[in-house]
Amino acid sequence: VKTAPVLPEKATHQQTRTFNQQLVLRAAYDHSPTSRADIARLTGLTRTSVSDLVGQLIDDGLVEETGRGSSTGGKAPIMLSFVPDGRHVIGLDLGEGTFSGALVNLRGEVLRSLRRPLDDRDGEDALELVHELVDALRADSQRPLLGVGIGAPGLIDTSTGTVRWAAHLDWSRLRLGPLVETRHQLPVVVANDSQSAALAELTFFRRPRPQNLIVVRVGRGIGAGIIVNRQLFQGDGFGAGEIGHVACGGERRCGCGNIGCLETVASVDSMIRLAAEADPSISDADRLASAFRADSEPATSIAAAGGRELGRAIGGLIGALNIQHVLIVGEAAYLGRKWLEIVQQSARESALPMLARDTTIDFGHPQNDVELGASALLMNAQLGLSLAR
Amino acid sequence: VKTAPVLPEKATHQQTRTFNQQLVLRAAYDHSPTSRADIARLTGLTRTSVSDLVGQLIDDGLVEETGRGSSTGGKAPIMLSFVPDGRHVIGLDLGEGTFSGALVNLRGEVLRSLRRPLDDRDGEDALELVHELVDALRADSQRPLLGVGIGAPGLIDTSTGTVRWAAHLDWSRLRLGPLVETRHQLPVVVANDSQSAALAELTFFRRPRPQNLIVVRVGRGIGAGIIVNRQLFQGDGFGAGEIGHVACGGERRCGCGNIGCLETVASVDSMIRLAAEADPSISDADRLASAFRADSEPATSIAAAGGRELGRAIGGLIGALNIQHVLIVGEAAYLGRKWLEIVQQSARESALPMLARDTTIDFGHPQNDVELGASALLMNAQLGLSLAR
Repeated sequence: VKTAPVLPEKATHQQTRTFNQQLVLRAAYDHSPTSRADIARLTGLTRTSVSDLVGQLIDDGLVEETGRGSSTGGKAPIMLSFVPDGRHVIGLDLGEGTFSGALVNLRGEVLRSLRRPLDDRDGEDALELVHELVDALRADSQRPLLGVGIGAPGLIDTSTGTVRWAAHLDWSRLRLGPLVETRHQLPVVVANDSQSAALAELTFFRRPRPQNLIVVRVGRGIGAGIIVNRQLFQGDGFGAGEIGHVACGGERRCGCGNIGCLETVASVDSMIRLAAEADPSISDADRLASAFRADSEPATSIAAAGGRELGRAIGGLIGALNIQHVLIVGEAAYLGRKWLEIVQQSARESALPMLARDTTIDFGHPQNDVELGASALLMNAQLGLSLAR
Repeated sequence: VKTAPVLPEKATHQQTRTFNQQLVLRAAYDHSPTSRADIARLTGLTRTSVSDLVGQLIDDGLVEETGRGSSTGGKAPIMLSFVPDGRHVIGLDLGEGTFSGALVNLRGEVLRSLRRPLDDRDGEDALELVHELVDALRADSQRPLLGVGIGAPGLIDTSTGTVRWAAHLDWSRLRLGPLVETRHQLPVVVANDSQSAALAELTFFRRPRPQNLIVVRVGRGIGAGIIVNRQLFQGDGFGAGEIGHVACGGERRCGCGNIGCLETVASVDSMIRLAAEADPSISDADRLASAFRADSEPATSIAAAGGRELGRAIGGLIGALNIQHVLIVGEAAYLGRKWLEIVQQSARESALPMLARDTTIDFGHPQNDVELGASALLMNAQLGLSLAR
């Protein structure tokens, strides 16, 4: 009986070179300004290899020499710095109601951003809007473009760039990545918005980079991105982090078909809708947050109930994964620390105390939005900036 | 500012050799009988390297030549087989009430097993019982011993072999691994019992080896072992899989201090205790299972309620991780397929339908017990038999 090979192939010379190139780039990214000697020390590569690889990165415009450092006895070393604008990246957020995009540099600084209302467009028309955004942002960039990162809600097969399911756009099994790649002749990567948000924290905001990280995005929906061993863990079917549809005992039917999903009580949209039933002035996240901060009802009870259910779900994640860094991003952050404390308390009560004690739950970086997450995704695919090895 | 190195070191020659040695051993383990040419094809290593590494494994007694295979044109190749009894392993289960141990070969075949009632021993006396079991099993082995794997309930730091917490044994921060290693002069590894069970499925029972796998152990307590990228994922503090303390809305206080933990309604011990309150004849898992299969109350309602809560917790894991293979092991398997269907149904209702549809939940191998899991743990630590790379 002939069996299919299941073992990893030995690394080829080219793979080794790419791997070492990424090691050097990551050292420059995380430790600028630094010297060739420091990079050799950090990476374990020989001085000769480092000089060779650094030369390539300088030619590529990703690293530059920036004068001499301080001497530790001998000749002062030439310092090297990562070049944030060595490439620009286009990050897109295919949100419900609005598509937005940003031109981002390699440090995650947003150089330009655009928003386009969807105005009920879907299918081909929605796709055309994606192309318009890429064209407009591309025209603004004076630097070589690394590619396009696209974040969207729903279930997305990152390996093929296929949107498996995005109900509000009437997209089903749409090969979005290849379509954008062909039209614009740029590398494109597509992933779920919450998964992208996790990569943004890992790539741009968290230092030192945590080994493992959970980023929970609470906005229109609820989803998480899970970093395991410094890599995005997407699961067997790219759906890892779909915690918005965990059952939490409510009675409302969810868009997914099940009853009582977490999203029906704890997403910002659900909290607004529930509060607006009693107080129609609560029409957006800002107003919900103001009412909550002012202790006015029913916003306070509704947001607290949502926070408790979110905390239970996070407690479940802490118990399941024992990941000690949990960040919350998205519009829910408007609700502030009083709400965060409710989430923290509830999470503590829902996980083994010994695990909960060692876990911090906090808000993520206030600038972590989907465009940035999508940019991080593309940078990781193209430059390997946050991979563990 | 001097920063600590955070990048992986370049592989040394010895690491490369060990890595390639494990590749070859794994090829022999998974594909016996096989030839040197097949191993070269499977691993991507050169014929010369494979011959060298195979020679070493033959010297070590882990691989043997077993005649000639069928010719595909030229000379028929010499076939190689993995030697199951090339090493024996001692696996220990430090269960509540009873310690047991087994002498196991490298295919997970149990050659000898022993049980010792704990009789309320704890502290030093319980530790002495561990030593007794190792001595007794060691005396029975005619082959070189690879080492001792120890599985136990509770939170265990596998990196140092420390039992952080095992209330029933009055062990706290006990450096169990080093103590057993020093006394018996053998490699020792210690881990949580459910995590060990997951490794046993991956090492001995599942073919092809799944990339990702969740094994839920339901017995006295409830815990899971999570395999990510063909490696045991233990989390930041070794507590990954502690799902027994997920809040599920019950009213009973759990041993951990929280209220309404999953274990209080869905562990086999809890189900027995709840059923016994109404029908004292239900005193063990067998009787609970008989009553459940006979549709007699209250066992049926209690086991069904436990199954539903377990299913919700599994649904939560499926949503969080999108891991498509879930196995249940432990005494709960006595409850049979009728109970499994309740768990499956409840899990389906608690996860995004698109994720649940692609996930199978089944019983694990009936021989998967803690001794075997602990043996798998040691084999993985010493031989790298189930690592991805």
